[in-house]
Amino acid sequence: MLTYDLKKDSHTSLYEDLYQRIKKDILSGTLSPGEPLPSKRAFAKHLSVSTITIENAYAQLYAEGLIYSIPRSGFYVTDLSMHRGAYLSPDTERSKPNQTKEPSTPQKKETYFADFAGNEITPDLFPFATWARISRNVLSMQQEELLTNPPAKGVYSLREAIAGHLLAFRDIHVDPAQIVIGAGTEYLYTVLLRLIGTHGIYGVEDPGYARFTDVCNSFQVPTVGIPLDPKGVRSDLTERSHVRALHLTPSHHFPTGITMPISRRMELLSLAKTSSTFQYLIEDDYDSEFRMSGRPIASLYSIDSGDSVIYLNTFTKSLASTIRISYMILPRPLLEKFDADPSLTTCPVSNFEQYTLAHFIAEGYFEKHLNRMRNHYRKKRNLLLKTIEESPLGKITDILEENSGLHFLLEIPDPKTDETTLIKNIRKAGIRVKTLNNYRQKKDLPPRKKHSPGKQITLLINYSSIRPEQIPEAIERLYLGITQSP
Amino acid sequence: MLTYDLKKDSHTSLYEDLYQRIKKDILSGTLSPGEPLPSKRAFAKHLSVSTITIENAYAQLYAEGLIYSIPRSGFYVTDLSMHRGAYLSPDTERSKPNQTKEPSTPQKKETYFADFAGNEITPDLFPFATWARISRNVLSMQQEELLTNPPAKGVYSLREAIAGHLLAFRDIHVDPAQIVIGAGTEYLYTVLLRLIGTHGIYGVEDPGYARFTDVCNSFQVPTVGIPLDPKGVRSDLTERSHVRALHLTPSHHFPTGITMPISRRMELLSLAKTSSTFQYLIEDDYDSEFRMSGRPIASLYSIDSGDSVIYLNTFTKSLASTIRISYMILPRPLLEKFDADPSLTTCPVSNFEQYTLAHFIAEGYFEKHLNRMRNHYRKKRNLLLKTIEESPLGKITDILEENSGLHFLLEIPDPKTDETTLIKNIRKAGIRVKTLNNYRQKKDLPPRKKHSPGKQITLLINYSSIRPEQIPEAIERLYLGITQSP
Repeated sequence: MLTYDLKKDSHTSLYEDLYQRIKKDILSGTLSPGEPLPSKRAFAKHLSVSTITIENAYAQLYAEGLIYSIPRSGFYVTDLSMHRGAYLSPDTERSKPNQTKEPSTPQKKETYFADFAGNEITPDLFPFATWARISRNVLSMQQEELLTNPPAKGVYSLREAIAGHLLAFRDIHVDPAQIVIGAGTEYLYTVLLRLIGTHGIYGVEDPGYARFTDVCNSFQVPTVGIPLDPKGVRSDLTERSHVRALHLTPSHHFPTGITMPISRRMELLSLAKTSSTFQYLIEDDYDSEFRMSGRPIASLYSIDSGDSVIYLNTFTKSLASTIRISYMILPRPLLEKFDADPSLTTCPVSNFEQYTLAHFIAEGYFEKHLNRMRNHYRKKRNLLLKTIEESPLGKITDILEENSGLHFLLEIPDPKTDETTLIKNIRKAGIRVKTLNNYRQKKDLPPRKKHSPGKQITLLINYSSIRPEQIPEAIERLYLGITQSP
Repeated sequence: MLTYDLKKDSHTSLYEDLYQRIKKDILSGTLSPGEPLPSKRAFAKHLSVSTITIENAYAQLYAEGLIYSIPRSGFYVTDLSMHRGAYLSPDTERSKPNQTKEPSTPQKKETYFADFAGNEITPDLFPFATWARISRNVLSMQQEELLTNPPAKGVYSLREAIAGHLLAFRDIHVDPAQIVIGAGTEYLYTVLLRLIGTHGIYGVEDPGYARFTDVCNSFQVPTVGIPLDPKGVRSDLTERSHVRALHLTPSHHFPTGITMPISRRMELLSLAKTSSTFQYLIEDDYDSEFRMSGRPIASLYSIDSGDSVIYLNTFTKSLASTIRISYMILPRPLLEKFDADPSLTTCPVSNFEQYTLAHFIAEGYFEKHLNRMRNHYRKKRNLLLKTIEESPLGKITDILEENSGLHFLLEIPDPKTDETTLIKNIRKAGIRVKTLNNYRQKKDLPPRKKHSPGKQITLLINYSSIRPEQIPEAIERLYLGITQSP
């Protein structure tokens, strides 16, 4: 190992001494490019100094670009002939084989030919020019406002723009003072847990959107899955389950696509009004903007007379999954709690983006964008349905609930294999897709029959991510995957 | 109030019409220099248009220098004989005494002459030009990445830039894979509660930063205040309190300013390593960037060998309070929990802002900005200290802990009144300020003596919001408030 006799009694600190000596050895070539430096701990032991000394010396060398780091491996001598001034972009390419470096978006993303379970959109669909122009204007004309802390509920003009949008497109009358802006729907769930309370059981639709359950369980708050019938989540079982609040997607149930009829809505509202334990309905209106035909269904919120409904919606679906802005409308009792909670005094969304979005909505661009997206999705859906119908896939599957939202169900009445094998085969064919069973709640009140191999399997076809030109091949591949023998 | 009959049916948009009419009235002298314009909300209501219309009209007038703005007050007609082209530096000097105009965001904000408890900065301190340029580049050059969901921990290039910054300026070695980006520090606290668990007691410094306690209590998670001695939070009492984790500010204790010496740090780290209940130290390094003199103190994180420290920091203090980006470094056990938690799969900060900030740091602008701000704060602090010393206030107060962070303490050894009356009198004099007692934890382990009237009172002087030109008058007003008889 490298050995230096450090001057323990000099004016220079140990780390500076060590840093100077290693530096000299690198510059003189005594240490050659690519050579690994000893691990901090071993080196510290070897030189009888603290690891902090080593750490500081390495930090200095790294800052000057004399060494580079490979995460979970260590430091290496920089090739100075190529890498001068490497500090700002330490070389991450020329790493050794068997490196464990995270890639630039370092999720282990599997690669598929087509993804029927994604939520991203392609750049041609996002109004970049308009967004850039508005954001430039905001940065030059609203500097004072950009740096002024907004109310805890969010920038007022954004809440006002949202209220205007809800009135025009969803027939919802709401005072901007009731609207709370949050950094995505999951964030708003955590706010609701605080306002409604963490001591109590929360009901979720079964099958249903798993994220609400995940957030509850992450805070060790129990949830219970309430089964559906053809009208949606069952009100009798909601009553019997002693839940405090119920999360539901009445406009377009996720994932079955059921639209809850008015009778069931009234049952649930009246339950919330009269029950001593059941207090709140959390209405997640996540994709009402993309209803493909017919009149939009009145929201639960707009027919509630008992201050029982929390209405939630998001720009994640309607604008881009990477713009993290969602909002909710709070009924009065929760609004009072929100205003009184000292942990909820700061809106988690940056002012810069709130003001940009406010202008985007208020100046009519959001409406235009929605029309364009609706049109885009409608075309894609029609192409998808037509392609399925005309392909061999159409003969072995049934299409269900295709009239709203960004997904429909594809039922395979007589699969050749069990579900796990089927999905594995489809993945092998290059297609990512989920099944209805992926959305079953783990904790059920009534016992549920296990899915038996060979019985009907239902796929969820989400078409927000797929590009139109991929559709013919994607359907061919899906067919191949499904008809593959075990 | 100003009344205009806007042409609702013309080709011109409402805001252009309004803008033209006000402009005409300013140029003709119908509206005289210094005259306040109505608040956006009231004006919108009065004219039956949306506040966005008013906002756009005002923005246009402001951009042309026809009106100027006074923070938390509103817009005023520019004196065109003196203030032509006032757009780039809107006049903020000529404020009216005792203005009580509605703020542009309709929070019930009290109006003060000066605020010693705020965290906002003025537009001249934010690097708007650079930010706008980077954000324009990102919007045109990184469209694909902007629409791709980042890892749950945040955009990799931002985490890499933060790791580089921490290494260069804080001597912290960290793998970007350990860094988690969040929408503000409060958001990250909610993540920590999930990772460490909601069944257990959390320790907080007493006195200390209340926000961590607030978040815990909001989730019904108990906290206990651990008293300080001159070395900072007491390790013996930490041990005896059976807390699972302790939130602390060792670099610059909030609010007393104590820097924890290495001995106490080692005690706490060894406690976390050996105790069966006490597992984590949550190191909030909220203002280490603004240490005014001496070498920065090594972080707890960098001397921890037991995977016990969570390091937290924020851009809220160093960049702007309205940009909601904070980050934390997780030790391995919590990192594994984070990766496994299905409720933590979405980063709550928009990609657009993450990429902008990543460039801002990696291209060296953040460092420049910090230097500029440090310089600005140093000057302000010196002016403040000098003004206090030379004023009558200096004779009745003592200054404590003025060497780091953005605040210092002002002790009044012999106040004329009790604390409540004193603060009321200071507010009447137009000054907002908090006392040390505002930061006492409500739930103490050992009983604490109640503050008795007439005993020493300690004010917290936070100088991030105050403008230098306000200082002489602010100190005069503070003195008047303090010396007011009951």
